Formats: sequence, structure tokens, C-alpha cells
Amino acid sequence: MRSSRYFLPVLKEAPSDAQIVSHQLMLRAGMIRQEAAGIYAWLPLGLRVLNKIEQIVREEMDRAGAIELLMPTIQLADLWRESGRYDDYGDEMLRITDRHKRELLFGPTAEEVVTDIFRASIKSYKDLPKNLYNIQWKFRDERRPRFGVMRGREFLMKDAYSFDLDADGARKSYNRMFVAYLNLFARMGLKAVPMRADTGPIGGDLSHEFIVLAETGESAVFCHKDLVEMPAPGPDLDWINGDLQPLVNQRTALYAATEEMHDEAAFNALPEGDRLSARGIEVGHIFSFGTKYSEPMKATVQGPDGQQVPVQMGSYGVGVSRLLGAIIEASHDEGGIIWPESVAPFDVGIVNMRQGDAACDAACETAYNALKAAGREVLYDDTDARGGAKFATMDLIGLPWQLIVGPKGIAEGVVEIKHRKTGERHTASLESVLDGLTKSKTT
Amino acid sequence: MRSSRYFLPVLKEAPSDAQIVSHQLMLRAGMIRQEAAGIYAWLPLGLRVLNKIEQIVREEMDRAGAIELLMPTIQLADLWRESGRYDDYGDEMLRITDRHKRELLFGPTAEEVVTDIFRASIKSYKDLPKNLYNIQWKFRDERRPRFGVMRGREFLMKDAYSFDLDADGARKSYNRMFVAYLNLFARMGLKAVPMRADTGPIGGDLSHEFIVLAETGESAVFCHKDLVEMPAPGPDLDWINGDLQPLVNQRTALYAATEEMHDEAAFNALPEGDRLSARGIEVGHIFSFGTKYSEPMKATVQGPDGQQVPVQMGSYGVGVSRLLGAIIEASHDEGGIIWPESVAPFDVGIVNMRQGDAACDAACETAYNALKAAGREVLYDDTDARGGAKFATMDLIGLPWQLIVGPKGIAEGVVEIKHRKTGERHTASLESVLDGLTKSKTT
Repeated sequence: MRSSRYFLPVLKEAPSDAQIVSHQLMLRAGMIRQEAAGIYAWLPLGLRVLNKIEQIVREEMDRAGAIELLMPTIQLADLWRESGRYDDYGDEMLRITDRHKRELLFGPTAEEVVTDIFRASIKSYKDLPKNLYNIQWKFRDERRPRFGVMRGREFLMKDAYSFDLDADGARKSYNRMFVAYLNLFARMGLKAVPMRADTGPIGGDLSHEFIVLAETGESAVFCHKDLVEMPAPGPDLDWINGDLQPLVNQRTALYAATEEMHDEAAFNALPEGDRLSARGIEVGHIFSFGTKYSEPMKATVQGPDGQQVPVQMGSYGVGVSRLLGAIIEASHDEGGIIWPESVAPFDVGIVNMRQGDAACDAACETAYNALKAAGREVLYDDTDARGGAKFATMDLIGLPWQLIVGPKGIAEGVVEIKHRKTGERHTASLESVLDGLTKSKTT
Repeated sequence: MRSSRYFLPVLKEAPSDAQIVSHQLMLRAGMIRQEAAGIYAWLPLGLRVLNKIEQIVREEMDRAGAIELLMPTIQLADLWRESGRYDDYGDEMLRITDRHKRELLFGPTAEEVVTDIFRASIKSYKDLPKNLYNIQWKFRDERRPRFGVMRGREFLMKDAYSFDLDADGARKSYNRMFVAYLNLFARMGLKAVPMRADTGPIGGDLSHEFIVLAETGESAVFCHKDLVEMPAPGPDLDWINGDLQPLVNQRTALYAATEEMHDEAAFNALPEGDRLSARGIEVGHIFSFGTKYSEPMKATVQGPDGQQVPVQMGSYGVGVSRLLGAIIEASHDEGGIIWPESVAPFDVGIVNMRQGDAACDAACETAYNALKAAGREVLYDDTDARGGAKFATMDLIGLPWQLIVGPKGIAEGVVEIKHRKTGERHTASLESVLDGLTKSKTT
């Protein structure tokens, strides 16, 4: 993409109501624009990152055997009356009346809809287990939307729903999501710690939040410090038949709880050096709630003995749009965002220090075309802005690599390559720099 | 994907309220499920097709120089008051009041939001032309939703918006979309005819609908018959600087109009053999409306002479979710859907005629793994349903190729390959069939 044809409205200063760094940087980097309180338009740069995060989530869900579908944003109030949640949900539910006076709502979550889909089609234990997920916009009418996409009203969520014949199967489904979450957050460069959590309006008796530690986090969290650096298991597991319980136990054996579930005595029983008391951002939340929805909504299957039994369910959320904020909180410096390569909007930025200079332009075009041909995503700043402004923009938007082409270097046959994360710069021939950038993303 | 783990709830019969064949087939093939009047959940098979159509639209927009962003579904009523459309839009607008009594709406289109984004950032003619598009769920509260996804209330639309300094630039932007539309519909196997159209609530004085002829179409249309078979120009054009006017003129020189714009006298002036009077499905609609939004909303740029001028705009819609219905109307037979390869949910279906037979299972596994390794998308029916039921499902869901593995053939060292579109079957060794299927999609 050429900057001259792109739409990248960077700002010199963030609006004063942006309180946390991720919100400030997303506004300044031209990633989002607020259209109403807690409602954002995703500008081209922001959308690219959102899509990459969404794709990582999708791949890890698919790997764990979940099946993607897409539920509508608008739901029937009557379906929520069946589960008993319509009146319970309170002011956060955006309630709507259509032209025929039917009561609708903008889905804040989709347990009812997915249970309705399930009960219409699946009748036998032979079709279990099933895990159905979707990545769809949700709306929660927060009383006080804040922190940009971290606590917006319209937000993108991945929500998966598992269906099993019995508690043992439900536990396995829960474990699959637990482990998939460890992997998917790790792929985004995040250290997300699973913590015992309150179940709130979703319900059930087993629940974990996945928490990224950050000073700007909204909740106080408490955990054993070893959990933070524990590596993710990685993809090479038997997701269908394997026993994932040991991987889960390895983590749940160590103390970790959100404020609501915090047990001061248990925490204080840890050696002082192992105690980590911090603030955190919730990026995922998983629930096992048995028959809370299947029973009132009559989602039953025929068991092996011919009896009808209500299906055992769980639900598994990832805050896809919120993750952009969490990643930026975890990865930025004074100059701006530092994207992990897996979610960067472009792999490489090309800075032409003297647009219009024939030699610089030619070198940049060569680089741009070679990198694109090698499958790299490239933003080529071909505008006539000054070099200093171009550098500032590149640092702000946080692409992993910057390729800098200036007249002095070109005269000597060299260009500069800068690694955004470390700030390291190297000077080398264009050919060798391109060779490195096209060989692998981590070169 | 293995059928045993998939979620493909096919129906023997379509509900009686499904009046047209595309609606019936989408329900029977387990692609969609109605959750409320005009509101559908996209089941896994339907979502796969939706995603492919969306991706074709995206690629053709990108090729034509449009930049993707994503606007929220929920919009501020006040923004629509600025353009004067809030009161005009009528009952089709889903109006919403939030917990703080602010007036919102579920966007039926996004001229106001995109104009707001534009005016906040773009100040100079030097940043023009721009074309910003998004693919997002819209809501129109149809009085009588019907025909499944063809006239739903919640629907997926690609909407692009062009911004130019003057009428000449606006015309070029219009032409770019006009030609891009010819290509994108052709890539889906559709013959879409551009016709002079009424502008309705969007406004402006230049507008074309892209119409797929179908007996079940909702509107009467009239055109020169040569337009139907006129081939699309294809992608190899100079989208930035090229003159696309001749390609547009080649089509607009021939009579074509929707009912609202029909000129009986002009139509009857055609030789009788050239007159085509038919019914059609609107799959795209493009508009050029000058300063209708930019003037009241004060979206101005500084021109070369230093003066502020309101920007010239156009908007360009494609009914992404509706396209599934249009494609099925155009491509089906008694057995079910016949997907064009470009949008098929899977490339190949494997039918194991005797699941559990060691030789059949082994051959199917070999085929499944080889095709996946070659990048083919495969649905392997590994259930214990009878062969006849498996054939019926494969025909119903319309995958381009069926690979049939039975015990008799395997004993003789052969399998069968069936082409869904022509119904042709060939018997050959598994190796040669796989060789053909992995070499190219059109083999």
C-alpha cells in the first residue's frame, strides 16, 4: 500500500479524554475514530490489526475442533424470556422495538440463540460433542464506556458454545478451550494468565478469566508469579482424543484469582516471593454451566439408554476488539506502538527520505515490488512529508521493520533497516536487506 | 472437514413458507436458519459461501483502489439530522434509544458516517480521490421480509463511498465502480446487467442497478438482449489512470432500465428481437449524488485555488448476503444447488459408500489427506448414512466435485468422480482422480 493513496489520518495529539495509552495511541495512529460514546469506526490501519487478531482466534478455534457459524446481531426478546435472562440482564442490554412492535435486542452474548440452533437440529448423543462458535459484533450498553476499545459498547467478540452429553464430556470441552486460549493469546505475544473467576450473568459454577497483567487494568488480580512466564503448550496436541487435563491442572494448581474470587488466606499461604498482586485486563472468559440454558429451553438429546437428557453446555468468550488495546498496553514505548509480528498491520514500512529523487524513488519501488512479490505486506510512505515526520509516523504505527531509503545512502549503494522493537539499525545493500526481509518474518 | 464432526443440519423438506427455490434450498442445505422475521443465523455451510463472496467483493474493491475500513452498526441519530435524512427515512429505519435516552439507529446505509469520517481528516484536494468501503451488517426494517436472504432485515452489504474534487473526478470514480462491479459479479458466475435506476432515498441524478435476470426477481426490467451475454472486461485495466469511460459507454449505449426508469417508447424503438423484458434481482446499486451530503454536513476540501469546496460524492452497494440467493436462483437443478467453483463452500465432497469397510476407509483417508495437502477444501462424508442419502446430500449442497468410493470399485482399483454441474461421472484409479483434482480447480 502506498501512503499517498491510503487513508491513515494520524494525529499529533490524542484528545484529552483518552486516559490510557492504548486509547491515545489508537487514536493518534489513525486506527479508530469514535462515532458515539463507546462506538468506534475502525479505520483502515485498525481494521487490518483487528482482522489479524480475528484470524488467529479463528485458527485456534478450528484447531481445537470448534465449528464456525455466524449468529445475527439482532435477537428476539422472547428467546431470552425462555432462559429467564430477559428481565435479569438489566440496563446493559440494548432493547429495541421494531415497526411491528416486536421486542428485539442487540445481542450482548448468544447463549440463547445458539441453544435454539442446537435444539432445532441435534437430537442424539451420537452427534456430540459439538462446539459452535462465531465472531460477531456485540453490544453492551455500558453505563460509562471508557478506555477506547477496552470498554466500548459495540465490540467484536468470539463466542464459542460447547454441547456434551455429560459432565465428563463437558469438562473435556472446557479443557480444550482452556488450552486453546493459552495458545491463541501466546500467538499474539500476550502473557495471559487463567484465573478463577466469578460467573456473573452467564452463570455456572466453573469459570476462568484470562488476564493480561497491565497497570491500566480495570481489575485487581492475584496469582502465583510462575503462572505469568509459563509457556503455552503449543498446537501439537491431540485435540480430539487427548487428555488435556494435566495441562489445565499444571496451571490451576497454582493460585490465581480475580478480585471477586480472591481468597486472601490461600494467597497469603504462598511464600511471599511467589505472590503477585497486580492489575489486569480480561481478554477471555470461559464458563461451564451445565444445564442452565438447556433445561429451560428444552435442548435435550437422546442418550445411549434412549432417555432424553438436557445437554451440558459451556461458553467461551474472547474480546477480539479489546485485544488491540491489551496488546498495545503490553507493547509500546514513547514513540508509539510496537506490534508483535503476528498482528502487525503491515510487516514492513518503507520510508523514502526524498520523494521525487529519481534514485530514491527507484530503490523504493524496487523494494516495494520485491517485498510484495514475496508475500510481505508493505506500507510505502511515498508522500512528500519530511523525513522526520515519516519516521515519527512509522514509529507511531509500530510496524516491525522500517526500510529507510535516503539520497546519501543510495549514492553509496546502501539503505538502512530499523527494527522497531529494539530500535537497532543496520546499513547494508538494498539487495541484502531485501534478502533478509523476504526470507522470513523473524529475520 | 469430516461430516461426522461438522454441523450440517440438512432438511428433507423446506418449511412451507419458503416460496422461492433459493430460500428453500438454503434451508434444506443447512446453510441458514431463521431466528426472527428476516433475521437469519448463518450455519457453517452458509457462512463458508458468504465468506467467499465477501472475499471476491473485497478483492475487486481493492483492485479498483478502494480502501477498506469498518463502520459500526449502531449510528447516532444526530448525524442523520445533519443530512436531513433522519425524518425522511421512514419506518425502515430501526430506531433505538439507549439507557441514557440518546437516540441511535441500526445503520441501513452509511453515507452520514463516512462523510463524518471524511470531514474529520481530509482537508485538501491533494488527498483526493478517495474511495472508502466497508463490508458490514445493515438493518432495514422491511414491512414484509420475505424470500429468505433476498429480502431480509439484517443483511450484509458492501458499501463504498467515493470522494472527489469535481464532477469529472466523480465520474471517473463512478466508472471505476461500474467496471469493478462487472468483474466481481462475473467472478461469481453471474450475468449482472447494469440498468438505469431510480435513486430513492440515497439521492442524486446518476444511478445504475446491477440486475441478475431471474423469474423470481422482484422487479420488472427491460434491456437490450446483447447486454446479458456481454463479457466482463476482466482485471487487466489501468484502474488508477486509465480511461474506463469507453467500457461504460459500451454498455450504457444499449437500452437497459428498471421499471421505475423505464421509457416504453425508447424500448419499443429497438428491433423486436433485441428487446428483453424480464424479471430481475438487484445485486448492486451505484449512485453519484454530488454534494447532497457534503454540503449540509460541511465536508469540504481546499481546492487548488485555495477555496473551500464541498466534496463530490458517490456510493456503491453490493448486497453480499443477497448474492447467495441470486446465485442459487441462477444455478440449481432438481437435486439442489450447483455452486460455481469460485464460491463453493468446499471444492470436493468425498462419499464413502461403506463407512467401516477397511479398504473404503483407507482410500477415503488417502484422498482426504492428499486433497487437503494440495490446498483443496474437502468435505468427507464419513458418517454411517446410506449411500443414497449421502448422494442426495452432496447433490443438495452442490459441491463442484464428488469423489465416490465404494467397495466394488476399490476391489477393482477404481473410484468414481462426478461433476455436479454436468452430472458426468468417470471411473478411474484413485491416483489419477486425485491427480486431476489437485492440479487445478477447473480440472
